[in-house]
Amino acid sequence: MSYALRMLETYPGDFGFDAAQLAAAIEALHDCAQACTACADACLAEPQVADLVACIRLNLDCADVCATTARALSRQTEYKPELARALLEACVIACRACGDMCAHHGEMGMEHCAVCAEACRRCAEACEALLAKASV
Amino acid sequence: MSYALRMLETYPGDFGFDAAQLAAAIEALHDCAQACTACADACLAEPQVADLVACIRLNLDCADVCATTARALSRQTEYKPELARALLEACVIACRACGDMCAHHGEMGMEHCAVCAEACRRCAEACEALLAKASV
Amino acid sequence: MSYALRMLETYPGDFGFDAAQLAAAIEALHDCAQACTACADACLAEPQVADLVACIRLNLDCADVCATTARALSRQTEYKPELARALLEACVIACRACGDMCAHHGEMGMEHCAVCAEACRRCAEACEALLAKASV
Amino acid sequence: MSYALRMLETYPGDFGFDAAQLAAAIEALHDCAQACTACADACLAEPQVADLVACIRLNLDCADVCATTARALSRQTEYKPELARALLEACVIACRACGDMCAHHGEMGMEHCAVCAEACRRCAEACEALLAKASV
Repeated sequence: MSYALRMLETYPGDFGFDAAQLAAAIEALHDCAQACTACADACLAEPQVADLVACIRLNLDCADVCATTARALSRQTEYKPELARALLEACVIACRACGDMCAHHGEMGMEHCAVCAEACRRCAEACEALLAKASV
Repeated sequence: MSYALRMLETYPGDFGFDAAQLAAAIEALHDCAQACTACADACLAEPQVADLVACIRLNLDCADVCATTARALSRQTEYKPELARALLEACVIACRACGDMCAHHGEMGMEHCAVCAEACRRCAEACEALLAKASV
Repeated sequence: MSYALRMLETYPGDFGFDAAQLAAAIEALHDCAQACTACADACLAEPQVADLVACIRLNLDCADVCATTARALSRQTEYKPELARALLEACVIACRACGDMCAHHGEMGMEHCAVCAEACRRCAEACEALLAKASV
Repeated sequence: MSYALRMLETYPGDFGFDAAQLAAAIEALHDCAQACTACADACLAEPQVADLVACIRLNLDCADVCATTARALSRQTEYKPELARALLEACVIACRACGDMCAHHGEMGMEHCAVCAEACRRCAEACEALLAKASV
């Protein structure tokens, strides 16, 4: 069981989510933030770094947005649905843009981009699943 | 002249903003992130901390959202207006909610909340001014 | 297999770590950052929040230090061992202090603190294991 | 008067620093974090980005370390000198390494690196000044 889920299951208050779904989203956000940070670094190590500038920039933004959203969702005390919704929407935009670009580079043979594209896609889906809930 | 403005004025590419206005927003975001981090800490030092839980929680979210938005706006290479807009909208929500709560506590005599409310309000206005531009 | 490990295994350059050990540390840092963010929030939801101020403050610092260290270790291009070492040492200090306090509260019945204490301890051990390597 | 100083002057507890010196360090850390984030982005916009990989990587680390240290120093409740000292030492390492590299590129004509080098040097000096105090 993940720490995100264990922390939700020991939370002393109530929250308007299914704990398993919320924990899965928090984990997907952390995975995506980590993969994007590492992908930006891997792109910097590529001989053709000059062709990867847009990818690096998207990676950096996506990492920051996902990390901040993971933190905000980890806070359930005095929860503000309107802010969570705005952050999840920003995450979906960042993950879709970064995931599409990384998927393209992955098809060209860059394996780290292929892995990162998968993390971005899974994160976008987890954020969209939360956005579909009335509680956000 | 602020470092934010000096960095924009030495940026080697083009960007779709008035440099002074963009720099002012980046500075307002940094000021707000710092004030919110410090206000959460000051609330923890108050004897009536139990009455300030909602304020602390809003401070923490607002600090994270403003810091991430300041970073994203500091990146003009391969700029994505759609993501910047989503982040600025999240900032306005966070700054308005946090600023209103801090203003209320400020009126009750908590001076750190009064200072933080001012930083939140100025940040919300700077974000709204950028959102009014077509380039975001 | 974790994303941290998959990203290391597709990294296009060399790095001076055992990939599995480095990935385990990055994951432990992320787990600890998440648990500390959630524990600070859970403490804010406790009726006796006034007795938990030191715990909240340690949680906030520990979350920030672990998140930054996870990012720095996720970057292997132009790696600077001296900086990695300084950050890992800061992490050990933060995780030991936060873990000890949370373990104390866990013994008093606060389950979220008990879970967080475990995440802190595991993170401190993972950081110490990396520090024992010559490559850091 | 900066927000950092105004927040310290309205802090409800005691702290073991000269407020003006601590506020100056917090501001220098924010300036450095912003300049490094912007410098990494400006380097990505340079035609010779392939020659700037080490600079970009140092910029990213320095931005993260300075942002985290600014947050930790902005928290004076239940202050832990040992952790503050470890973070300040990590900052000095990051700022000196990044500042030296940026200064070198600045001499070669890259103006954004010259501005960033100045922010790094000022931040290193502010951190060293705090480290010289017994209260850290």
